[in-house]
Amino acid sequence: MPVSDSSHVLVTGGTGFIGSHTVLELARQGYNVVVVDNLSNSCEEPLRRIEKLTGLKDRIPLFKVDLADKDGLREVFRQYSFSSVIHFAALKAVGESVHKPLMYYRNNIAGTLNLMDAMIEFGVKNIVFSSSATVYKADPEGRPFREDSELGCTSPYGRTKLFMESIIQDVVNAEQGWNAIMLRYFNPTGAHESGTMGEDPMQIPNNLMPYMSQVAIGKLEKLHVFGTDYNTRDGTGLRDYIHIMDLAEAHVAALRRLPANQGYEVFNIGSGSGQTVLEMIDAMSAACGKKIPYSEDPRRSGDIDTILCDPTKAAEVLGFKVSRSLEQMCADLWRWQTTNPNGYEQ
Amino acid sequence: MPVSDSSHVLVTGGTGFIGSHTVLELARQGYNVVVVDNLSNSCEEPLRRIEKLTGLKDRIPLFKVDLADKDGLREVFRQYSFSSVIHFAALKAVGESVHKPLMYYRNNIAGTLNLMDAMIEFGVKNIVFSSSATVYKADPEGRPFREDSELGCTSPYGRTKLFMESIIQDVVNAEQGWNAIMLRYFNPTGAHESGTMGEDPMQIPNNLMPYMSQVAIGKLEKLHVFGTDYNTRDGTGLRDYIHIMDLAEAHVAALRRLPANQGYEVFNIGSGSGQTVLEMIDAMSAACGKKIPYSEDPRRSGDIDTILCDPTKAAEVLGFKVSRSLEQMCADLWRWQTTNPNGYEQ
Repeated sequence: MPVSDSSHVLVTGGTGFIGSHTVLELARQGYNVVVVDNLSNSCEEPLRRIEKLTGLKDRIPLFKVDLADKDGLREVFRQYSFSSVIHFAALKAVGESVHKPLMYYRNNIAGTLNLMDAMIEFGVKNIVFSSSATVYKADPEGRPFREDSELGCTSPYGRTKLFMESIIQDVVNAEQGWNAIMLRYFNPTGAHESGTMGEDPMQIPNNLMPYMSQVAIGKLEKLHVFGTDYNTRDGTGLRDYIHIMDLAEAHVAALRRLPANQGYEVFNIGSGSGQTVLEMIDAMSAACGKKIPYSEDPRRSGDIDTILCDPTKAAEVLGFKVSRSLEQMCADLWRWQTTNPNGYEQ
Repeated sequence: MPVSDSSHVLVTGGTGFIGSHTVLELARQGYNVVVVDNLSNSCEEPLRRIEKLTGLKDRIPLFKVDLADKDGLREVFRQYSFSSVIHFAALKAVGESVHKPLMYYRNNIAGTLNLMDAMIEFGVKNIVFSSSATVYKADPEGRPFREDSELGCTSPYGRTKLFMESIIQDVVNAEQGWNAIMLRYFNPTGAHESGTMGEDPMQIPNNLMPYMSQVAIGKLEKLHVFGTDYNTRDGTGLRDYIHIMDLAEAHVAALRRLPANQGYEVFNIGSGSGQTVLEMIDAMSAACGKKIPYSEDPRRSGDIDTILCDPTKAAEVLGFKVSRSLEQMCADLWRWQTTNPNGYEQ
């Protein structure tokens, strides 16, 4: 169902992994998208690929603006009439945030404050926010997290997500007519099925799947499985993986929900089922047709047995469910990895 | 015990109510103090009174700098060698924060980030932070809060305090050699016993005691008692009041604790006993020798029965206990109110 009006959706961080796949899905569904990104951890190329994949005649407008730059941001709002904003732009490396907390707070929080100020100034009152399951307090029994589960973070990165949620909620409470949807993602992976878009880590990947994918193609020597004595079916950590295109569709579902005028809402976005590290290794090995070498290493501090999503609320309210299988996640990731071994680098 | 070295203590927000009384106590104990304040809700006059009260020959250096001004702040660090910082500077009106959350987040959080950045740059690693009992989640049974009680705020103001605590804690974890003490105050009131220093609300007071004091002197018509059906001994809300000079002494005790190198520590600062609104009216009526008119009004949303401090940890670790009585709080407040009916205005 294409969008009929001529207003635009602003996507901050729209060239990053989740941002770019969401822009793709928005463009595919006929939304007019404008991207703001400081390109600190990404490049313009995914936008070119989106234009090709969707047959767009015009370029997707990209403003190379850091959200710290209030005036630069206001200039974007001056040039376009936005119906809503999807806010991805943020630093996201958990380990780095432990060592550089002030950088994370400054970048993520101040950026969000500037964005919200600009939205108020220009009368844009609809926002979808890129949050994370990391805001939940670890549950020792590994029960699936519901949106009303207890909150509590172990890293500065996680706290910036929690604080940004609070800031947005306080604005919704303070101002008339605002609608905000927080999407708390579990573990996004995979790539677009075309193989032309995917995750492009600029350093050694922090997350399991891009790391594994680089091991599979021979760029990294072997995978490290941290902890084999967890209380899970095979002793390795169990997580809730979601295909990046399912996650992209969840953002569009959230965007469509905003006009329902429900004020502030929170949704988990995950599959509701979980895989262990060893199961992911098996699935990826099957997808790439070779054994992925790994070593069994000690637990990392801060890791826990199980992180699972209860996806009931998103299904009931947003009508969102994942539709892509674990096999497809791995097949699509592998297609991206093999056809673009150096990511977006030409 | 005067301080022997020539290094200075930086006090941000040092002309405000709690800040100025702490500067007074620091000066009295021989510390060299430098004040940074944007004077947005205060004036220089308390520093003149401190100089007079303590017989200082030199003026207390005051930099009219907003913590948002990174370069202005760095200039202060360039001019003085600081052993430690006491960080008061913040917006503090709960109700205003509900209506202007972005202003509160921007002012309080960004100011703290700039301060911490400057401290890191100039190698100053000791901080006492002005936090608040408002960070505790309301306890339906009214049990005294301990430092490990559950956290949870109901206002953006409270959240800025909680977030500032987290930011400081993350820096202590990330950097070598830092010491930080969070002081969570309960309800400060009273004034210096000389009657020359006290609280000087620029608008109609938000808090019970300065409001009552202005009713007593005839500047306001009557006191409003919000809620008489609470689960307390007389039905009115019960709070833990602490004399401002006791609170000032707690800051000096915290400052002396920092060299013990305990990293990040949190202390409640309160009396451990509580008074109801009606008891405070009685005490203030006795101090000023007249009946204070009041009306009984409905509960305000968000208010709760009882907020009490468990002061055990501060007593055991800081050696801090309140020493001033409720009668003295009221007598000192009344002396300040009558000798300075217009506050610091000349």
